[in-house]
Amino acid sequence: MRRILAHLSYDGAGFHGYQRQPNDRSVQGEIEQALGKIHKADGWKSVSSGRTDSGVHGIRQPVHFDSSLAIPEDRWPKALNTLLPKDIHVHSCQYVSSSFHARYDALGKEYIYRINTAPERNVFERHYVHHLPKKLDIGAMQEAAAHLTGTHNYTSFSSPKTDVVDKVRTLFVIDIAKEKDDWTLRFTGSGFLYQMVRVLTGTLIEAGAGDRNPGEVPEILAAEDRALAGKTAPACGLYLAQVFYEQKKMDDHIKKFQ
Amino acid sequence: MRRILAHLSYDGAGFHGYQRQPNDRSVQGEIEQALGKIHKADGWKSVSSGRTDSGVHGIRQPVHFDSSLAIPEDRWPKALNTLLPKDIHVHSCQYVSSSFHARYDALGKEYIYRINTAPERNVFERHYVHHLPKKLDIGAMQEAAAHLTGTHNYTSFSSPKTDVVDKVRTLFVIDIAKEKDDWTLRFTGSGFLYQMVRVLTGTLIEAGAGDRNPGEVPEILAAEDRALAGKTAPACGLYLAQVFYEQKKMDDHIKKFQ
Repeated sequence: MRRILAHLSYDGAGFHGYQRQPNDRSVQGEIEQALGKIHKADGWKSVSSGRTDSGVHGIRQPVHFDSSLAIPEDRWPKALNTLLPKDIHVHSCQYVSSSFHARYDALGKEYIYRINTAPERNVFERHYVHHLPKKLDIGAMQEAAAHLTGTHNYTSFSSPKTDVVDKVRTLFVIDIAKEKDDWTLRFTGSGFLYQMVRVLTGTLIEAGAGDRNPGEVPEILAAEDRALAGKTAPACGLYLAQVFYEQKKMDDHIKKFQ
Repeated sequence: MRRILAHLSYDGAGFHGYQRQPNDRSVQGEIEQALGKIHKADGWKSVSSGRTDSGVHGIRQPVHFDSSLAIPEDRWPKALNTLLPKDIHVHSCQYVSSSFHARYDALGKEYIYRINTAPERNVFERHYVHHLPKKLDIGAMQEAAAHLTGTHNYTSFSSPKTDVVDKVRTLFVIDIAKEKDDWTLRFTGSGFLYQMVRVLTGTLIEAGAGDRNPGEVPEILAAEDRALAGKTAPACGLYLAQVFYEQKKMDDHIKKFQ
C-alpha cells in the first residue's frame, strides 16, 4: 500500500456536504466510489483535510488515500477525473509516506467568503456568491475583524451543534477586499469550529451594514454565547481555499517515501 | 390589455432551451407559468426576441407579453421574480405600445462566446465557459474572422436543421478579446441562423489551433456546404448578450403608449 495525497476542487452546489452520507450525494462518496472502481473493491476509504457543509465549495482541498496499484503519480489525476462527475476535479496527486495524514497534519486553513452587493442578483453566480444588495462600510467591518483575530474562545462564533469541547482557536488574519460590488473575505487560522467562518461573516456583515457596533465584539467573545453573535451567512459564498502543512515535514514525508 | 417588454437573464444549464416544450423544463415555460399564476389563467403567452438552445445562456434578453392587470411597471420585476425559479431573473419591465414585437422588431443581436484555454478545467465555470486546453493563435482567428464578417450566405456556417430558406445575413463585427486564458468572442449581426455562432466559433477555434487555414474561409462561404466548416462549439460558452431595436422606433413605441 502506498499513500497518495490528492488536491481536488469541487462545486459544492450539488452535494449534501463533503462527508459521506448513506443516501445523499457527497464529495467523499463520489471520490470513494471512483477509488472503489479503480481498485475493483467497494468501500475504499479516503481522508480529507476538512469536511465542508452542504453548498460549500472546495479549492484544491487536500485528501489522502492508500492504494495497492502501481500507477505513476502523474497518471492518477486522469484516472480519477475519468470516473468522477463534472463537479469534482482532481488537480494533482503525489505519493507521500504512510505517516502523512491530511487532517491531523494540517497546521492551518484559509477560507474565502464571497459577497456581491450589487442591487440586482446575477443568475450565473447564484451558487457561488452570497448576494446581499446592501451598502457595507468596509471600515466598520475591518474594525470588527481586528477584534476577531488573535487567540480566543470562539464559542459565540460557531454552531453549538458539535462534540468539540476545546473552542480556543487562533485566527491569524481576516482580510477584507472589495472590487466594485465584489467582496472577498479571507480567513486564515490554526483551525476553525463548525460554521465558524459563516458566523464570523454574518457578524462582519452586520457591522458593515450598521446593524451592530464593531466595539461590542470583545464582549461577545467573552460571553461565550452563540446567541450574541451575528446570523450564519449562507453556504454558497464559502470556499475552503487552502490547507497549510509544515513544509519541512511535508518535504520529509515526500523524501522518506522516494 | 397592455403590452410589456421585459428584460431577463437566465442560466441555460438547467433548461432544455428557451422555447416551451411539452415535457421538458424551458425558460419560456417557466415564464408563462409565472404569468399564468399572476393572471390566474393557464396558457398565458409570451414572445421572445430569440430562442436559445439547450445550455445556452441569456443576458437581459427582451421578451414581450400582454397583461390585463394594472400593475405599475416598476412592480412587475418583483412580481415575476417571486414566482420564477432562481435560474431566471427579470431585470426590468416597461409598458410599450401593442404594435411592438420583441422578435419582428429586432434589428440585430450580439452573442458572446466564452472560451478558457488554461491547462486545467475550473469546476465552477463548467456550465459557463467552453474549456479548451489548447494554444490558440489570435492572429489566425482574427484573419478568419475578417473573412466571416460582411453580408454573406451563411449556409456553410449554420445547422441544416431549419426551415429558414434565406440564409443571407450581415455580420457587422466579430471581436476577439483575450485576458490571460479567458477568451471572449463577440458576434454582432443583423440576424443569426440556427447554431450559426457555434459553427463560426468552432471554425475560428480550428483556425486558432492551426488545424485550418484562415484563407480558406471565402471558399467555404461560397460552397454553401455545412460539411466544410468547423465543428459546432459546445452550448455552455454561448450567451445571447444584446438585442438591438431602432431607438427612434422604440422611443415612439414608448411615447405612443404613455
